[in-house]
Amino acid sequence: MTAIRELAITVRRASTKCAKVGHSSVSVARSLRKLSPTAFKTLRRVIAKVEHLGILGQKIRLNEREQEANKVIMAVKKEEISKGILDPSQFTPGQHIFKTLTEIRKSQIFNLIKRMPKGGVLHAHDTALCSTEYLISLTYRENLWICTANEGCKAIGFRFSKQKPTQKPMEECNWEPMEEFRNRRGEDNVTKYLKRRFSMYPFSKFVSNNQAWAHFMGIFILLDGLLCHAPIWAEYYYNALKEFSEDGVQYLELRSLLPPLYCIDGTMLTTMDTVAIYKAELERFKADHPNFIDSKLIYAPLRGVEPSVVEQYVKTAVELNNEFPNFMVGFDLVGQEELGRPLIDFVEPLLKMPEHINFYFHAGETNWFGSAIDENLVDAILMGSKRIGHGYALTKHPLIMRLARLLDIPIEVCPVSNQVLQLGVDYRNHPAALLLAANVPIVISSDDPSFWRCAPLSHDFYFAFLGIAPMDADLRFLKCLAINSIQYSALVGEEKKVGFEKWQNMWDKWIDDVVEQKSC
Amino acid sequence: MTAIRELAITVRRASTKCAKVGHSSVSVARSLRKLSPTAFKTLRRVIAKVEHLGILGQKIRLNEREQEANKVIMAVKKEEISKGILDPSQFTPGQHIFKTLTEIRKSQIFNLIKRMPKGGVLHAHDTALCSTEYLISLTYRENLWICTANEGCKAIGFRFSKQKPTQKPMEECNWEPMEEFRNRRGEDNVTKYLKRRFSMYPFSKFVSNNQAWAHFMGIFILLDGLLCHAPIWAEYYYNALKEFSEDGVQYLELRSLLPPLYCIDGTMLTTMDTVAIYKAELERFKADHPNFIDSKLIYAPLRGVEPSVVEQYVKTAVELNNEFPNFMVGFDLVGQEELGRPLIDFVEPLLKMPEHINFYFHAGETNWFGSAIDENLVDAILMGSKRIGHGYALTKHPLIMRLARLLDIPIEVCPVSNQVLQLGVDYRNHPAALLLAANVPIVISSDDPSFWRCAPLSHDFYFAFLGIAPMDADLRFLKCLAINSIQYSALVGEEKKVGFEKWQNMWDKWIDDVVEQKSC
Repeated sequence: MTAIRELAITVRRASTKCAKVGHSSVSVARSLRKLSPTAFKTLRRVIAKVEHLGILGQKIRLNEREQEANKVIMAVKKEEISKGILDPSQFTPGQHIFKTLTEIRKSQIFNLIKRMPKGGVLHAHDTALCSTEYLISLTYRENLWICTANEGCKAIGFRFSKQKPTQKPMEECNWEPMEEFRNRRGEDNVTKYLKRRFSMYPFSKFVSNNQAWAHFMGIFILLDGLLCHAPIWAEYYYNALKEFSEDGVQYLELRSLLPPLYCIDGTMLTTMDTVAIYKAELERFKADHPNFIDSKLIYAPLRGVEPSVVEQYVKTAVELNNEFPNFMVGFDLVGQEELGRPLIDFVEPLLKMPEHINFYFHAGETNWFGSAIDENLVDAILMGSKRIGHGYALTKHPLIMRLARLLDIPIEVCPVSNQVLQLGVDYRNHPAALLLAANVPIVISSDDPSFWRCAPLSHDFYFAFLGIAPMDADLRFLKCLAINSIQYSALVGEEKKVGFEKWQNMWDKWIDDVVEQKSC
Repeated sequence: MTAIRELAITVRRASTKCAKVGHSSVSVARSLRKLSPTAFKTLRRVIAKVEHLGILGQKIRLNEREQEANKVIMAVKKEEISKGILDPSQFTPGQHIFKTLTEIRKSQIFNLIKRMPKGGVLHAHDTALCSTEYLISLTYRENLWICTANEGCKAIGFRFSKQKPTQKPMEECNWEPMEEFRNRRGEDNVTKYLKRRFSMYPFSKFVSNNQAWAHFMGIFILLDGLLCHAPIWAEYYYNALKEFSEDGVQYLELRSLLPPLYCIDGTMLTTMDTVAIYKAELERFKADHPNFIDSKLIYAPLRGVEPSVVEQYVKTAVELNNEFPNFMVGFDLVGQEELGRPLIDFVEPLLKMPEHINFYFHAGETNWFGSAIDENLVDAILMGSKRIGHGYALTKHPLIMRLARLLDIPIEVCPVSNQVLQLGVDYRNHPAALLLAANVPIVISSDDPSFWRCAPLSHDFYFAFLGIAPMDADLRFLKCLAINSIQYSALVGEEKKVGFEKWQNMWDKWIDDVVEQKSC
């Protein structure tokens, strides 16, 4: 292996000499030009192998059955990639999802992924989980009122109430029973209108991510009165678990603002009640669905506040965790990072959080290099965040990236969210490719699938597999993503063991299905 | 500094434990949560400092005068960034250059950069250097014929000739004297039409990079007959040096196909003659412009050929270098990497190149992760390429990226080219940001400024400074880019020393100008 020795010597020699910078003519012995073609080939093979082994999932060994399934999957994948290379304009990961959503449903890769047991979703928000169809169905419920402006042309808010509500939404508007509104404007028109208002469609081209965020926050605000009614809140969560479960998700770690809910007579419940409702629904769901692993809660209030408010957040988190020690287990802050406050403003109150309540901070969801949001990455890691939400900017910070790898802090990558919120367009340029290559742990999540009319997790997996990962990433890659999502969850001890067993069960069945499908 | 010690211990402990992967519940002591706020602040400062020092240019010390100039520059930069944060839709690096070209000309940053002595352009192609206006002016020359199709609506080719040309361009077309064509169609119409045909405008949204490349190659083909006429070839190069020089560029390392040129009577010259013409024009230009440093040539024929042809290329390179030892100094292969052949196909003939002829390979100008083009990066480095052309995909290959850093192989980053050829849109997502952060050497180049109607180098510097670099990158960053472009050029020994002196001269004057402008 003289070629490798030569490379090693050249590198060593270069790294001691090339420290000189400036006007002096540095002439480093950096040439490998004297290699023979045979030595060249050996060296290239070694390097390719070493590079390859660093990539996520490459160390997993597939059993025989899995190897067979892998052949099926890779045959289909190669076909989609080949088509893409011949005509990149038809390659879905190069385009905006709002233009390709229908197309993707026909993709064989997508349909394989859809049925795959993908483990857990570790990054998703309370009122952005369920399908648009489900949201529309809620608007048919009894006692629902709608508040509209512009002579009924613009929906401002909803409220469940026996009498005309007295609440004043954020804009001037008039309350009327939802049923009357629907009759007056025509059912089809109302459905069409609400479908648009409940999602980011049809805007595949916002002018900037500030505008995208404004629209995005508008959906949360509009949904508030519809979902914060206590019985609906409960049902929404149950339905989310159902939709997620049907999409091959067996575990959900939910970030929630934990808003106080209202009853039909207008009385308000407490934050503690909100958690209790979650917990009760979860138990009901688990009893009905024995294959489901679990769900846990991350308390994630708004970041655009004074430090004193964060002090209060910490107290609330402690109280909630005392009451639901195994369920409400983590803390985060939410809202557009760029317009909120940086984490550093809250270091003092946050460091008062007892250590058994985990941090799962959003950080670096930006493409402004060197901004305060960028630096949230440093603070999140130094404060001991167990995972990083988004971390889109992480690759611009090699030192922090290295710390994430060494401290085994995974990045919660949400591909579709990043595209819709205008951080990037082409998935082939998504920075997560670099995390994969640098062996920084990642999990794939969906953030707010409801708002982009996506499957609870399958679309994000699809883009990670076809657009972000190297072309030859295979079943090992997918398996590793699923394993990571349980490995890096807040499940502990026996819970986690059982979790892995439940997932493995479903996984083995899926592998059988894939192999059998081939023989059809 | 107990905080730092604690971080070190945690990292060490984590990196020994977290090697376990899979189903076992890894519980690494990875928390830094016990930090006091004071320890936290110390640690954060140290990390910020260390990260910062790794970034390109941070180690340069500015003299007093430069520090003053820096204040002027950073005041203007901060203003543009602040406006961008308030309204990202107005931030030019977030948009396609074809939409912002006029806007950018008004930018104060751009005008500062325009006058800055930027060193050399190390990556640019023979017939894509000059302004559209200059190209239009060539179409007024005597004895020029145009070949058109679609009843004169589509220009297929040009030719200088005393009589009607007999050449058959790639598509069926009819020859007529350019003057007649212009009279027949109207001067304004013809100018407008040619302006469009000589550039990538107005297509800011090609559907894919294959389409962009097809259009792009079409310009080269159309220009062929216009520029490959020997006297015009000479003049085009002289004019290019002039335009570059006026844009603050003092050195040009040109990649050329070195096509055989034709005389007015149809006789053909040799490749050797093409180089001789370059050399003669260069001497003439240098005599007229004593501040200009130099220009050198990289022989860069097409990559879409059989290995036996590359064998011939190598022979030609050796002959040319024998004749012009200090001028024709390097070798590369050009054409869309994705449709050509990968470097590995040519390893055997290429390794026969004598070591004193440098390789400057294009590699990794793609966003297809794991493709053969991607792997060109491995081959380019292993074959001892002195620099890498584009290297857009390099950041996806941490090992190769590390080799580039250790072997001191700079990446020729061409921001505008990457955008126009559809690799990415938002400059804030350009992978060069990661190269900066990881201390991989880079130079900024313009590739084919003629085709995007850009200044010879200023637009690329503008986007590197405002869009790609961290917000607080300052004069040190710009100075380092200029220094790199001379440092990593093919200039050697005394040449390089003189080069640095000529640049320093202009630099000091520019610094004075910037400072004085402030006091106006």
